[in-house]
Amino acid sequence: MTALPAKAALIGCGVIGAGWAARFLLNGIDVVLHDPDPDAPARLERLLERAERAWRRLTLAPVRFHGGWRFADSIAEAVAEAEWIQESVPEREEVKRRVLAAVEAAAPPDALLASSTSGLLPSRLQRDLARPGRFLVAHPFNPVYLLPLVELCGGRRTEPATLERAEALLSALGMHPLRLHHEIDGFVADRLMEALWREALHLVADDVATANEIDRAIVYGPGLRWAIKGTFEVFRLGGGEAGMRHFMAQFGPALKLPWSKLEAPELTPELLEKIVAQSDAQAGDRSVRELEELRDDCLVSILLALKQHRHGAGAVLAAFEERLYALSHSRVMTEEDDLGQPLRLFATRVQPEWVDYNGHMTESRYLQVFGDATDALLRYLGMDRAYLDAGFSYYTVETHIMHLREVAAGAPLDLATRILAADDKRIHLFHEMYAGDGGPLLATAEQMLLHVDTRAGRACPAAEPLRSRVARIAEAHASLPRPEAVGRRVGEPRSRRSA
Amino acid sequence: MTALPAKAALIGCGVIGAGWAARFLLNGIDVVLHDPDPDAPARLERLLERAERAWRRLTLAPVRFHGGWRFADSIAEAVAEAEWIQESVPEREEVKRRVLAAVEAAAPPDALLASSTSGLLPSRLQRDLARPGRFLVAHPFNPVYLLPLVELCGGRRTEPATLERAEALLSALGMHPLRLHHEIDGFVADRLMEALWREALHLVADDVATANEIDRAIVYGPGLRWAIKGTFEVFRLGGGEAGMRHFMAQFGPALKLPWSKLEAPELTPELLEKIVAQSDAQAGDRSVRELEELRDDCLVSILLALKQHRHGAGAVLAAFEERLYALSHSRVMTEEDDLGQPLRLFATRVQPEWVDYNGHMTESRYLQVFGDATDALLRYLGMDRAYLDAGFSYYTVETHIMHLREVAAGAPLDLATRILAADDKRIHLFHEMYAGDGGPLLATAEQMLLHVDTRAGRACPAAEPLRSRVARIAEAHASLPRPEAVGRRVGEPRSRRSA
Repeated sequence: MTALPAKAALIGCGVIGAGWAARFLLNGIDVVLHDPDPDAPARLERLLERAERAWRRLTLAPVRFHGGWRFADSIAEAVAEAEWIQESVPEREEVKRRVLAAVEAAAPPDALLASSTSGLLPSRLQRDLARPGRFLVAHPFNPVYLLPLVELCGGRRTEPATLERAEALLSALGMHPLRLHHEIDGFVADRLMEALWREALHLVADDVATANEIDRAIVYGPGLRWAIKGTFEVFRLGGGEAGMRHFMAQFGPALKLPWSKLEAPELTPELLEKIVAQSDAQAGDRSVRELEELRDDCLVSILLALKQHRHGAGAVLAAFEERLYALSHSRVMTEEDDLGQPLRLFATRVQPEWVDYNGHMTESRYLQVFGDATDALLRYLGMDRAYLDAGFSYYTVETHIMHLREVAAGAPLDLATRILAADDKRIHLFHEMYAGDGGPLLATAEQMLLHVDTRAGRACPAAEPLRSRVARIAEAHASLPRPEAVGRRVGEPRSRRSA
Repeated sequence: MTALPAKAALIGCGVIGAGWAARFLLNGIDVVLHDPDPDAPARLERLLERAERAWRRLTLAPVRFHGGWRFADSIAEAVAEAEWIQESVPEREEVKRRVLAAVEAAAPPDALLASSTSGLLPSRLQRDLARPGRFLVAHPFNPVYLLPLVELCGGRRTEPATLERAEALLSALGMHPLRLHHEIDGFVADRLMEALWREALHLVADDVATANEIDRAIVYGPGLRWAIKGTFEVFRLGGGEAGMRHFMAQFGPALKLPWSKLEAPELTPELLEKIVAQSDAQAGDRSVRELEELRDDCLVSILLALKQHRHGAGAVLAAFEERLYALSHSRVMTEEDDLGQPLRLFATRVQPEWVDYNGHMTESRYLQVFGDATDALLRYLGMDRAYLDAGFSYYTVETHIMHLREVAAGAPLDLATRILAADDKRIHLFHEMYAGDGGPLLATAEQMLLHVDTRAGRACPAAEPLRSRVARIAEAHASLPRPEAVGRRVGEPRSRRSA
């Protein structure tokens, strides 16, 4: 696995610079920032709060914003110990060149220097550098902490090793680097967006449609497809079974039709006012914060949706999660483990999607969490991919749940698990679900698991070392006091056991 | 509510015409098609299969493809009884004009005539019509059965009432009609796509990036945002707190930069071959069918994701579902109901998202289905929105589940529910989950529900008429034989009851 840098320096902390900070921090990388704007730290804090909120919903994998951050008073102080230096200052060539020269003067000799520019040419940006070989463009997209795309483009004097190193590092951060073959103004994604944008401005200028109607023409139609397929892939399917050649034969002639104004419109004061007014009308009385939260909520849901199919950005997320899980090594039982108490093997948080219209966690999600705790127990016993692939598993055959208290979205949950009894085929277990951080008992589940030969579809004895581990835990847990809920029939009076 | 047409005629059954057929059929509208291609019926059947598959996953609301379809030998026969006539023949003006003239000659006098053209001007298409007032362009997007967008554009001689009628009807079909203010070649969405497409062709022609790289530059970045926000909305947030004026000040000058080639490239034989070859390489060995299924699966997941937030196309879906539920009137108990058997109030189907890596329905989904069956019982008892809004509800306090058999994705499920016992605060119930169509018992759930004052957070007696209805069912069900699973403790030997 690619080693991540321990420290990154971020010069410029606007929407893009702060987004980079979140991306590094969620990977445990410390960042030092420099931005002359006194509001920058407050802006960063707001963005980090939003990014954490999004990532809490995006994955149960161990993502924590455990990198630390601070602001430095000068560029020199910010870059002094950095392995990765990202410049995200305003899009003016002379400003960027001045900043990059100051960065180079103070940077460690093997640090990478990257610019976030969305359109300036790297060959021009690297002109004043003494060691231009380690400079490249790494152009991300807003919000940087959620969108995986980052365009990589070297200048004439960029060393190939710089691009390779950058590609490996950014992939490890959960991004999707796209290396460009040729240097070109605007790179790829911004050129495509710019072409569409110029056409949109004409439609507004000519009153064919308003800004909002043009936006609806995207989000109710082509935009849904563009989350999944690019324009070549979309058009290929437009050609039906006959594919791309057929599509080009049918629609190629449209290239000659007056379907685009081509030249950019003149941005007159009148057009500017019209656009600003129509954009304000679209936003209504929703604040930027509300708009950003809605965008993030929808992006998180879309990324989760695509993850199910391991497609597009969902495949990038799935691979990133696997890396995180691999780094966290879920723990397998050892001889030394203290078994004197119920096992604490699983903790989670109530996801917003898990609550009903009352704001409480839905009934079936309790069983989902208990199921995840059972999975954690089985991993602890040593049931791994190889065991499952060999055709053996434990199935749940019976469950009894007590719902004791309601719990709201965002609440942390801690699970405690004990084995009440076991034989070579069965595990009789009991989970307690607590509100996290020492909170009250929310629910319990008593379950019977049966070890099965999944191909034959019938019960069979568990293999070693699982069997002995189960027996050891059951023996140790036998001396724990028996919870009241164990052995209950539905509707039995609660006083029965204490009588 | 807008009354839907009983019959539609579809002239042309390619990707778009067949997509329209699915959209009408899923709304219970009969369609008669005409297409000279002998393969058209087989192609339609394949598309309908895909559309049904998508809609089964998209909603549990009562969507059924209950409209009927047949092919007619002539345009005259196809349109004879239609209220809505949709032309989707190839994009050549003279062909469309000839077809529309034939349609008009045989169409009922008050039928609407719509063209699916993606770019031809309605004023020109309506030229030969004797009654051009009832003609309009209704331009949908592929796949028509999933994407809500449809652009509506009248010609100079189109009557305003025609556009209003079309807008109301297409909304009722679950679509999002977008009315254009001015007639323009390519309308809005295709102009935007065309601008992007022309730029993409240049990037391929100049070897800046391959077709696949250009597509990845969309789907890992801007495309994810375009499913949620249009280009004006995206750029507004790019301006941060300062909004659109700030964005335009920062990026307005980019309109003068060489960020777009503007003129369409010449589609030389060399460029055509390059595009076809790169598109083939992208598709790899996946068939059109596989690509279409993957696209539909992802679109369904994205629509469901956006529905959670009632945003964009998800809001259109949510409104459509409410209409379907309103039309279906879930049934409330009457004096005449036969209570001699367990109640059959809920049926569903195992959704693809509900299965684990073994292909079986995940443990917690059993409880979800039982919870849905409990909700159906409560609706049957008369617990409606007003009852909940008054601050009363039933909460589940205890559940016992027996897992008897595995079940796979797509399988139909039938639930049978009985009330074992009840008092003014409690309902003790028992659900049996059967594989649909007379299949075997899959699982059972015994549950205790408690009637609560949700604001005070404590138990209280249920109100009338719910209380008497519960009592009547409990009394009637008392004489049913008691299922073996009732009153079980987890792990109790199965022979206990029969002993």
